[in-house]
Amino acid sequence: MINLAAGQCVACRGGEPTLTDAEIADLHPHVLAWQIKEVDGVKRIERVFKLKNFIEAVAFTNKIAMVSEKEDHHPLIITEWGRVTVQWWSHKIKGLHKNDFIMAAKTDELFG
Amino acid sequence: MINLAAGQCVACRGGEPTLTDAEIADLHPHVLAWQIKEVDGVKRIERVFKLKNFIEAVAFTNKIAMVSEKEDHHPLIITEWGRVTVQWWSHKIKGLHKNDFIMAAKTDELFG
Repeated sequence: MINLAAGQCVACRGGEPTLTDAEIADLHPHVLAWQIKEVDGVKRIERVFKLKNFIEAVAFTNKIAMVSEKEDHHPLIITEWGRVTVQWWSHKIKGLHKNDFIMAAKTDELFG
Repeated sequence: MINLAAGQCVACRGGEPTLTDAEIADLHPHVLAWQIKEVDGVKRIERVFKLKNFIEAVAFTNKIAMVSEKEDHHPLIITEWGRVTVQWWSHKIKGLHKNDFIMAAKTDELFG
């Protein structure tokens, strides 16, 4: 099984194709806790993480922020009391790229 | 004009009434950049803040988190590249309390 979490994001330029349904079906089993959803016609992957309180939710948000800066790929993060919702997608191509699955796997690792 | 931002949250117990429309109309002018919205029948106040990049968005999220811990009243914060969306409402009473307007004013002050 490939180790997605050990991957690194490649520079994603506009104009690249989004992942096909077959490619998504190959990658999804590596990050099974994530759901594919579509917002305004753009596919995203989303996972809700449960935390103990607000401070732990913010701490997890910060961990994700550090990795996303390192990889220069940035999510949408909803921080609430006891809960962090993370969505990954690739703005430049308006959909899912392998980078998003790599980042989902890295997010899972951060959660531990 | 009252200085909402200098206010402190009072403990909000379940069972207290939510603000009336007239009370909301009195408080709203103090935090005019915020919009009243309703999600699943529960009123919230929301403002979108523009930031320079992801790191600045996360830094602002952390500033809000610190004040919300101090006041023991916690928002929903959506952190994205260049943008932070903040929603305040009072979970215990399923709607808006004066605390939410105090926190909105404090959030505006943090943004500077």
